[in-house]
Amino acid sequence: MGKTQENKRLDGPPSGAQDKQDGSKLHLCTAVEIHDLIRKERVTVQDYARALVERFDERNHEVKAWAHFDNKTILAEAKRLDELPRASRGPLHGVAIGIKDVLLTKDMPTQYNSRIYDNDGNAAADADAVAVLRTAGALILGKTATTEFAAKVEGGACCNPRSLQHTPGGSSSGSAAAVGDNQPTWGLVSTEGVGRFSTTCDTVGFFANTLDDLVLLAKVYRLDFDYSPPPEPFAIRGARVAFVKTSVWDQAGPGTKKAWEKARSLLADAGAVIDDVHLPEPFDECRQWRETIVAGEARSAFLSKFVESRQKLHASLQALVLNEHDPSRKDMLEAYDGVARLRPQWDEIAGRYHVVVTPSAVDEAPEGLWDTGSAVFNIVWTVLHAPTLNVPGFFGQHRLPIGLTLVGPRYGDMQLLRAGRALGELFERKGGY
Amino acid sequence: MGKTQENKRLDGPPSGAQDKQDGSKLHLCTAVEIHDLIRKERVTVQDYARALVERFDERNHEVKAWAHFDNKTILAEAKRLDELPRASRGPLHGVAIGIKDVLLTKDMPTQYNSRIYDNDGNAAADADAVAVLRTAGALILGKTATTEFAAKVEGGACCNPRSLQHTPGGSSSGSAAAVGDNQPTWGLVSTEGVGRFSTTCDTVGFFANTLDDLVLLAKVYRLDFDYSPPPEPFAIRGARVAFVKTSVWDQAGPGTKKAWEKARSLLADAGAVIDDVHLPEPFDECRQWRETIVAGEARSAFLSKFVESRQKLHASLQALVLNEHDPSRKDMLEAYDGVARLRPQWDEIAGRYHVVVTPSAVDEAPEGLWDTGSAVFNIVWTVLHAPTLNVPGFFGQHRLPIGLTLVGPRYGDMQLLRAGRALGELFERKGGY
Repeated sequence: MGKTQENKRLDGPPSGAQDKQDGSKLHLCTAVEIHDLIRKERVTVQDYARALVERFDERNHEVKAWAHFDNKTILAEAKRLDELPRASRGPLHGVAIGIKDVLLTKDMPTQYNSRIYDNDGNAAADADAVAVLRTAGALILGKTATTEFAAKVEGGACCNPRSLQHTPGGSSSGSAAAVGDNQPTWGLVSTEGVGRFSTTCDTVGFFANTLDDLVLLAKVYRLDFDYSPPPEPFAIRGARVAFVKTSVWDQAGPGTKKAWEKARSLLADAGAVIDDVHLPEPFDECRQWRETIVAGEARSAFLSKFVESRQKLHASLQALVLNEHDPSRKDMLEAYDGVARLRPQWDEIAGRYHVVVTPSAVDEAPEGLWDTGSAVFNIVWTVLHAPTLNVPGFFGQHRLPIGLTLVGPRYGDMQLLRAGRALGELFERKGGY
Repeated sequence: MGKTQENKRLDGPPSGAQDKQDGSKLHLCTAVEIHDLIRKERVTVQDYARALVERFDERNHEVKAWAHFDNKTILAEAKRLDELPRASRGPLHGVAIGIKDVLLTKDMPTQYNSRIYDNDGNAAADADAVAVLRTAGALILGKTATTEFAAKVEGGACCNPRSLQHTPGGSSSGSAAAVGDNQPTWGLVSTEGVGRFSTTCDTVGFFANTLDDLVLLAKVYRLDFDYSPPPEPFAIRGARVAFVKTSVWDQAGPGTKKAWEKARSLLADAGAVIDDVHLPEPFDECRQWRETIVAGEARSAFLSKFVESRQKLHASLQALVLNEHDPSRKDMLEAYDGVARLRPQWDEIAGRYHVVVTPSAVDEAPEGLWDTGSAVFNIVWTVLHAPTLNVPGFFGQHRLPIGLTLVGPRYGDMQLLRAGRALGELFERKGGY
């Protein structure tokens, strides 16, 4: 979602909406709030778009969250949405969304932070995931910054809006800087039109300011089918919560360790039944297997770019294509079959708990813009095809935010959002430094 | 490859090339032959293109193999190729290729045989698999007919060139009619820009007239990396050959049964050691698991088309999106994990033999154009991610061709082509009716 960082609540009372009707604060609205204001005709999509465009003019030269942002396109799209008859308006009518610059868009260029696409025009069609948003009435603001093909850790031009000397972290640099992550189970959202890197690991993720906004998105993508929500909200009291440090816990920095202990005691105080879970040894292989799969699949994913315009491809991506012997075919099969064996085992473990807590990152976002930080804590879940939800609420020694990740079994997306609302509210209220 | 059917040899002496230098017969050349003639400057790409365009004008009104074929584009592209300096010419320089109309092309529309794309223009970029061909110097002729999104069995307008009352079979109707199938191991060729149906099952395939042409393609896509070819050609004498009827053998028609027996005795006579292999019981589930995976993945693959232009989507594809409870999440996990367990088992079984023979289809292509025929014999290999190679040489009671399929373990692509050359040559020479 293409929103700014100030409103960092992951959940909270919707009361703020009234104060924000004044145009100068509209950019602080959550998706649910703005959708509601527009539905009630308190503001138009164009009012909202103007507020966002102003904010962009103030901040992007510093933060550089956007790879493409064109005031005219946004205002024209807002006008089109305002002119839609009520009956044709979708569940995201007027909700502003930024699209990572590795998803094709029919009204904006897609450049993957790659020199190959410097002069490219708009795509013939939206990526599937974008088409679903556009049809639901979303106001597509622009393209958010990314690392080259979302395939490298070396950063782009994007800064952390809370500290311009720090990277916002990860390949979704721009998305994270523009707001304050939810990754659905692999396969639940079509990746057609998303720049391919690894078929086995590529998946779609969402950033949003509130859990309600994530739930809204989940429904638009129909992640809620075959799911019957329990009648009661998630209760922390009595909930079985697993804390999974994983085998790379020794890489955790002081901020993450502190957040970990604090979350543990907050949950225990609130009546949760906490269990420290050590994953069986084969799970230690997951990171290596994921590296193998990604490197092997990148050979074919980048072959066409390599043969077409080698000199414009980053040396590390060229090396992936050229590396004909490592990983070997045998390594690839071992990795594919290894992770496939672990997926149902993970489901079984996760299924014993109401929710699983695990570190999100090594620590606060690293200083400097060159290295977007280690994804060592995330990648195991990606290759297991498990849904994850990063919940903020804590802060590190540079006063930059630290989150914890909730993980579920495959297809446990809706339960994860349900638990995330309760845990997010607790961490937000009592987390801190 | 976009070639005509007359030259049905799967392999053979390259001597025919001389007779074909006369422009009227150039369309009969194999890829290797034409590449050679052009390299030696006996013909230009434009000479070749003109011969193909003429042939198209004669036959396409009957066969309807092409969804898009534009003489001007082809001749302009041929001119561009002729003008390339020698040093910039690729390994497919001048080789004519037809692209199934579910792969994006930057100089032609991509319509998926769907009303949704009736008025669409060219794509902003080629699909990865097309870009690799174009960079290698291939002359992209046009887009070959397909069933809607390659996702249905109900046919398009395409006829079998050997009998206009018969379908050419399958979602690749147009590709099969234009020539006389090789499907690489899943993941070896990027499917970016290929219309998405099922991430787990979608894979790229090639049609060609000769094994040499397929080897040429395999090298361009670098399927041969991490493979050391044995110094000797594949010898049938002493080769361990498995015959796998599969659990759906009772659906085989008289033509397939006859071809089966004939192939068996031809190979035995030639000194092969034949083993009838019954796959363990869990393999019987593969077809149901594949149905489950494809139906479940189609829900997300077609969601964007459904919400954008439901009324233009075939009823059977609408039904896939609407079917929220079947397959259930539980069914999906069972299917994913079930096939994942079988993949290494298949590799182990296939690894005991030099080559595995299995039926390609129920029988000859069915009469009528409505139903493109059952894929019941193929789908197990697709979901196991195994490479397959259809080898022709036999004929059914309507004198339409019947092939047999050779299957390998995952990544056994090059060995499959090597064995296919020997078996194909034998079947072609001694197969028949």
